[in-house]
Amino acid sequence: MLVKSQVKYIQSLGHKKFRDAEGVFVAEGPKIVSELMQSDKVKLVHCFATEGWLSENMQYASSDPAMFVKTDEKQLERISFHPTPNQVLAVFTKPVFPASPIPAGVTLLLDTIQDPGNLGTILRTADWFGVQKIVCSANTTDVFGPKVVQSAMGSIVRVELIYTDLQEYIVAHPDIPLYATTLDGEDLQGKIHLSKAFLLIGNESRGVSQHLERLAVKRFRIPGKGGAESLNAAVATGIFLSQIEVLNQTR
Amino acid sequence: MLVKSQVKYIQSLGHKKFRDAEGVFVAEGPKIVSELMQSDKVKLVHCFATEGWLSENMQYASSDPAMFVKTDEKQLERISFHPTPNQVLAVFTKPVFPASPIPAGVTLLLDTIQDPGNLGTILRTADWFGVQKIVCSANTTDVFGPKVVQSAMGSIVRVELIYTDLQEYIVAHPDIPLYATTLDGEDLQGKIHLSKAFLLIGNESRGVSQHLERLAVKRFRIPGKGGAESLNAAVATGIFLSQIEVLNQTR
Repeated sequence: MLVKSQVKYIQSLGHKKFRDAEGVFVAEGPKIVSELMQSDKVKLVHCFATEGWLSENMQYASSDPAMFVKTDEKQLERISFHPTPNQVLAVFTKPVFPASPIPAGVTLLLDTIQDPGNLGTILRTADWFGVQKIVCSANTTDVFGPKVVQSAMGSIVRVELIYTDLQEYIVAHPDIPLYATTLDGEDLQGKIHLSKAFLLIGNESRGVSQHLERLAVKRFRIPGKGGAESLNAAVATGIFLSQIEVLNQTR
Repeated sequence: MLVKSQVKYIQSLGHKKFRDAEGVFVAEGPKIVSELMQSDKVKLVHCFATEGWLSENMQYASSDPAMFVKTDEKQLERISFHPTPNQVLAVFTKPVFPASPIPAGVTLLLDTIQDPGNLGTILRTADWFGVQKIVCSANTTDVFGPKVVQSAMGSIVRVELIYTDLQEYIVAHPDIPLYATTLDGEDLQGKIHLSKAFLLIGNESRGVSQHLERLAVKRFRIPGKGGAESLNAAVATGIFLSQIEVLNQTR
């Protein structure tokens, strides 16, 4: 049975402030919850699940019964952040990634991505193409918001994502070339060959900030011949990443 | 001033049944509303806007004052389908496209796309790459839902989108090759050259239906080396479209 204080606790985790204070985030649905339970980057804190889910996942539920709370569909609705709650809602510690140098290939730099669905999709797309690290401007939406987690799926524990001042970050790494995606750059034609680079993706409506664009060694545009003014930020990220060929995987 | 019957009318347009009965849809925000007002594919039916928007758009508002209703932010909140209402909400007739043969280049076939944001983003991406027509399975989400319109933006009047039985549609066009995007097809490497083709995009979690996949002459996969199980449907669509080179634009 779910008690009132638990409902309040879960609801508070809809706010970044409380997620940060507790160092946790919420994931919902059998697919992502079971993927996260198998990850060594996060730890399960609480799990609220239907009887059906619990009986199918005895291997987890029996290990530490105090962590698992049986709920019915109605109770799940009260704590869910999704329009259609799905069997299980779990609270995990935020993932911890070991300190590491900037990896070979592309490191994505996200400038003020504001839509949670876009950030989640970018994370999942980056993971598909083997990107290991994403660096976000401080005003990019929080990666642990419920909608981001939902669209990122298990990629949230496979791709490291940090928030910082992008200009300082770029300037601190003068040896790594910065490529920017803009609406007036050189047409992206064929593969881009590189060994290590930053790829800068701009805000959904304003694009890349000028003070960052000035630091780029190359600016690319995705050629289009239709009527749309711009591409969705996640779609543009996917198209760029699909065209990148990493020359030398050794560091 | 907004009256109660108008509030009820707008709210009813959140449901496909009522949109279909009235032959209209809702668009919100200055950008898309002004784009649609300039289109010859749709007609404005009602417009609810703040005083600020009305005074900046006198050229429209003065042409038929009965169509324009002044509202304040609070009233706009009551009728808006968005979390953050933005100055103007307008009702338009659904776009009418002249009957035309299947165009050169790619015609997108969407198999059971369920997420409104994905459908809108696919529409916008198709528009960017000059795709003129999209054919959806009957169970694909309605293109005139508020979230689809929001993510499609003005592309909703530039790309024709129809709903039908995809199998019948493919079989009725035996001269047009069907390419399918699948997780186990041939790796997409370099450009695909074609003069006219159908490109089939599958459902977000189940992919392309088997009975449709069997009709494909080629099946492509986007090569990835990371951990994500799949790509978002709109991102995959964008990557495929970016790799298509139309050989012969004459019909």
